[in-house]
Amino acid sequence: MCRWLAYSGTPMLLDTILYKPVHSLIDQSLHSKLGVETTNGDGFGVGWYTETEETDTPAILRDIGPAWNNRNLREIADHVRSPLFFAHIRASTGTAVQQTNSHPFRHGRWMFMHNGAIAGFHLMRRELCLLVDPALFADIEGTTDSEVMFYLALTFGLEEDPPAAVAAMAGVVERAGRAHGVEFPLQMTLAVTDGERVWAFRYSSERKSRSLFYSSRVETLRRLHPDVAFLKDVSDETRLIVSEPLGDLPGAWNEVPESSYGVVQPGADALFPFAPAGA
Amino acid sequence: MCRWLAYSGTPMLLDTILYKPVHSLIDQSLHSKLGVETTNGDGFGVGWYTETEETDTPAILRDIGPAWNNRNLREIADHVRSPLFFAHIRASTGTAVQQTNSHPFRHGRWMFMHNGAIAGFHLMRRELCLLVDPALFADIEGTTDSEVMFYLALTFGLEEDPPAAVAAMAGVVERAGRAHGVEFPLQMTLAVTDGERVWAFRYSSERKSRSLFYSSRVETLRRLHPDVAFLKDVSDETRLIVSEPLGDLPGAWNEVPESSYGVVQPGADALFPFAPAGA
Amino acid sequence: MCRWLAYSGTPMLLDTILYKPVHSLIDQSLHSKLGVETTNGDGFGVGWYTETEETDTPAILRDIGPAWNNRNLREIADHVRSPLFFAHIRASTGTAVQQTNSHPFRHGRWMFMHNGAIAGFHLMRRELCLLVDPALFADIEGTTDSEVMFYLALTFGLEEDPPAAVAAMAGVVERAGRAHGVEFPLQMTLAVTDGERVWAFRYSSERKSRSLFYSSRVETLRRLHPDVAFLKDVSDETRLIVSEPLGDLPGAWNEVPESSYGVVQPGADALFPFAPAGA
Amino acid sequence: MCRWLAYSGTPMLLDTILYKPVHSLIDQSLHSKLGVETTNGDGFGVGWYTETEETDTPAILRDIGPAWNNRNLREIADHVRSPLFFAHIRASTGTAVQQTNSHPFRHGRWMFMHNGAIAGFHLMRRELCLLVDPALFADIEGTTDSEVMFYLALTFGLEEDPPAAVAAMAGVVERAGRAHGVEFPLQMTLAVTDGERVWAFRYSSERKSRSLFYSSRVETLRRLHPDVAFLKDVSDETRLIVSEPLGDLPGAWNEVPESSYGVVQPGADALFPFAPAGA
Repeated sequence: MCRWLAYSGTPMLLDTILYKPVHSLIDQSLHSKLGVETTNGDGFGVGWYTETEETDTPAILRDIGPAWNNRNLREIADHVRSPLFFAHIRASTGTAVQQTNSHPFRHGRWMFMHNGAIAGFHLMRRELCLLVDPALFADIEGTTDSEVMFYLALTFGLEEDPPAAVAAMAGVVERAGRAHGVEFPLQMTLAVTDGERVWAFRYSSERKSRSLFYSSRVETLRRLHPDVAFLKDVSDETRLIVSEPLGDLPGAWNEVPESSYGVVQPGADALFPFAPAGA
Repeated sequence: MCRWLAYSGTPMLLDTILYKPVHSLIDQSLHSKLGVETTNGDGFGVGWYTETEETDTPAILRDIGPAWNNRNLREIADHVRSPLFFAHIRASTGTAVQQTNSHPFRHGRWMFMHNGAIAGFHLMRRELCLLVDPALFADIEGTTDSEVMFYLALTFGLEEDPPAAVAAMAGVVERAGRAHGVEFPLQMTLAVTDGERVWAFRYSSERKSRSLFYSSRVETLRRLHPDVAFLKDVSDETRLIVSEPLGDLPGAWNEVPESSYGVVQPGADALFPFAPAGA
Repeated sequence: MCRWLAYSGTPMLLDTILYKPVHSLIDQSLHSKLGVETTNGDGFGVGWYTETEETDTPAILRDIGPAWNNRNLREIADHVRSPLFFAHIRASTGTAVQQTNSHPFRHGRWMFMHNGAIAGFHLMRRELCLLVDPALFADIEGTTDSEVMFYLALTFGLEEDPPAAVAAMAGVVERAGRAHGVEFPLQMTLAVTDGERVWAFRYSSERKSRSLFYSSRVETLRRLHPDVAFLKDVSDETRLIVSEPLGDLPGAWNEVPESSYGVVQPGADALFPFAPAGA
Repeated sequence: MCRWLAYSGTPMLLDTILYKPVHSLIDQSLHSKLGVETTNGDGFGVGWYTETEETDTPAILRDIGPAWNNRNLREIADHVRSPLFFAHIRASTGTAVQQTNSHPFRHGRWMFMHNGAIAGFHLMRRELCLLVDPALFADIEGTTDSEVMFYLALTFGLEEDPPAAVAAMAGVVERAGRAHGVEFPLQMTLAVTDGERVWAFRYSSERKSRSLFYSSRVETLRRLHPDVAFLKDVSDETRLIVSEPLGDLPGAWNEVPESSYGVVQPGADALFPFAPAGA
């Protein structure tokens, strides 16, 4: 299991979000409160879009040690500003601790990260891999269930219709799991982005999904907390989605409901129900 | 702060001691109960003497990630048998996470490992380094207070009289600390060995030392627990010294008293009071 | 491309073979003479059987940096003695530098290592993976062509008849390659062992295979070089197979002929022609 | 020994300088032509100032493996634009391969990198360390001669007068070396910067200094090579200083003369003779 964070809004020094908060993601790497594991020290990753479009793809820094003592992450956080970034800390459920198993994963302009697991993945790894578009298969670099979920979603049209593609992926995983006698095959909170919008999903076959929260509207928070400097510096469009609240500012955090997904986008954000396709 | 373990006795597969116990050192790397930090994931090391004297020195495997997911440590534990070995898991108190800062440290046939800290080390690093024998100074490879403690002990005759040398080192550290206005400069549980005997010290300026335990005599444990298979396989001379008990076998673990040191050696082991020299 | 070495014979400190020779494998990691690449710095591995059967499997130490500066490899070489070991240094042909892509690979008591490549592997990775026994598929941990070759050989009966299984694997790879329009799909020197015997293969579709040498019979070498101390210490059964000669002792090294394989075994070793199956 | 590169001028994607040239620094990490070692695979570093002053310090990414296969370096190069950056690839002369031994080193706004060595450094490490300002001593994190040279230069006023401070450092090193009977104690090409100006020194006690080149004036190159697109995009102030030419564009590269130093700065750059102080 893992913890993650997605930021979208006013271009921000990564440090402000990754290290500064009381219960920051870095703090969660040592002391997660809501995760399955207290420690998330089996690799980490951060992916960001630059303010000026240097390239077509987001930058991704991934490594295999814990985030809490990684100096390169500290350097990037202190010197990189971004309007949209993902960060992820990993607690391996058994697969190798290697750079290619650290999130986020990338395909072109798209990034993907996941907390959760496919129960019984070892049993159905092969058949799930076979469902990946043959043109994409050879690009799989790691051995996690998460990366296979990403490639399945790409296969089912992630780049055209993310919610439909994720629903198709979830349907396929649940059917494969149940064919193997796994009662609750899927456990996921996941985020995808194309650099413009962020989609965040919370779902589990058991309907006991891992925690997921989104930050309240900035205007609302400013009224509640006129003294919080940070809120004055960010635009109304700024939004965070996180595995765990980064602090305890009253009114700041809202649980993403069970079996639903949210879209962070230009204009009003939105929340929708989520169900695997063809269930 | 850190956790460590010293084993001396019947040649044993490292796995038996490092991984198999309920609350093994590997488990402590994620879930320390008595340590200052729950997580000890900032590097680790294991040093062992071979059964046949391949070389004059113990072998040392050290790495910078957590012990709990390290595959090379797992391999060594599964395939190496040793009559005397040290293992250490590190929680950095700020210095860099690098191989040369992982314990145990080695000098010829000697190994050294430490849990604790010199309070205000940054302030007195230079003057403590100056007290190291100039012939040894250039061999210091890392930046920890622990390694400087080792080199000070070597300077003060560790290879001739370990308790006197450690006492001299502790005295020097306390005087340096107090000169800088540090009330309680030294906190240490440490172990040294020449491959024949193991000396284990528990001391702190504040007289609130980190936890340290030694295993009971094997004969006694056999009488108490005639059904424990492990006890039948090991000689009467077998002894463990550990930061935390590896399990909760009644009667198995005894606290090393405050301000004292023990010697594990051929024949009867012994326990003595410890005080810094020239205090 | 890569370089490798297989040793079988009198139990030997790894250092004697890995570091001591003038043009040792460690030297080849920086200065390969016969390899496609001068530098082999993209990870390494060493796998050894213990003298006393600690476990059913060989020990494997693998890491991601260069061999030439790796301290843990140096420690193992200085302190481990083995009657049969493999060592491998990697020059990536593009796939990720990660522990699971370093050789040797292991399955139960078996080890496997490879130098060469499947030309166009990216194109046919999926179909080759599909030919792997479904019961084995989920154990694939890395992303190299070499590991897929290993799993194909396992699928085709490596544990029962290594030469037939490797021939079947080679046949499958060549047919897949040619179906994709690749003229010379396979380039390989590879070694497999069960801890008792070593099989070493030299083959390429183009019949221009990478270099492979075997050491002369120890009796012969002793007559030629009565002054070489090393030769007095080793049994007549001792044999080395290497990508490049480890030195220039006259008469010591013999090229494994194109399209052939050798078996190092108790009793007389043997050399046979090799051809892919069903070609 | 090592190779390095300093860039100052029009803000540039790091990739353009680090990877794109025919004989780029990344290529030099595998195939150095003018270095003492062909391979520079013992760690690397890149340090850059951001275009917008995010913080008072440059960002530094350092790692312990080779540069040529490092994915995080590739990501940074593809996504970071900077008006002034240093890059360094290391070939260890014996000291540990660890992050704190990779260049560039940093102190506040200052960066420092070095190619060369202090001959007999092991002998005089202690006395050179003693000459470091006690207020700075405890900040030394690694074990290289290079870092001690940096701290000596800081001690002697690097932040006020870099050429005088480097001359003082060089003088101290030469005197210490000669006192130990070392004929030619110092070999160095080094670069320092405060983010505005770059000072690059070429000197050796033997007057056979490692190679160092600076790029010709951009206006001159534009006239010589009106077809080279790169030259149209960069300002007249743009300058590169490199251990080895990055390609063979006629007229592009000029050797820094023996025993001299150059200053890259707003306005006209300048070249001066260099000699150790108090020699």
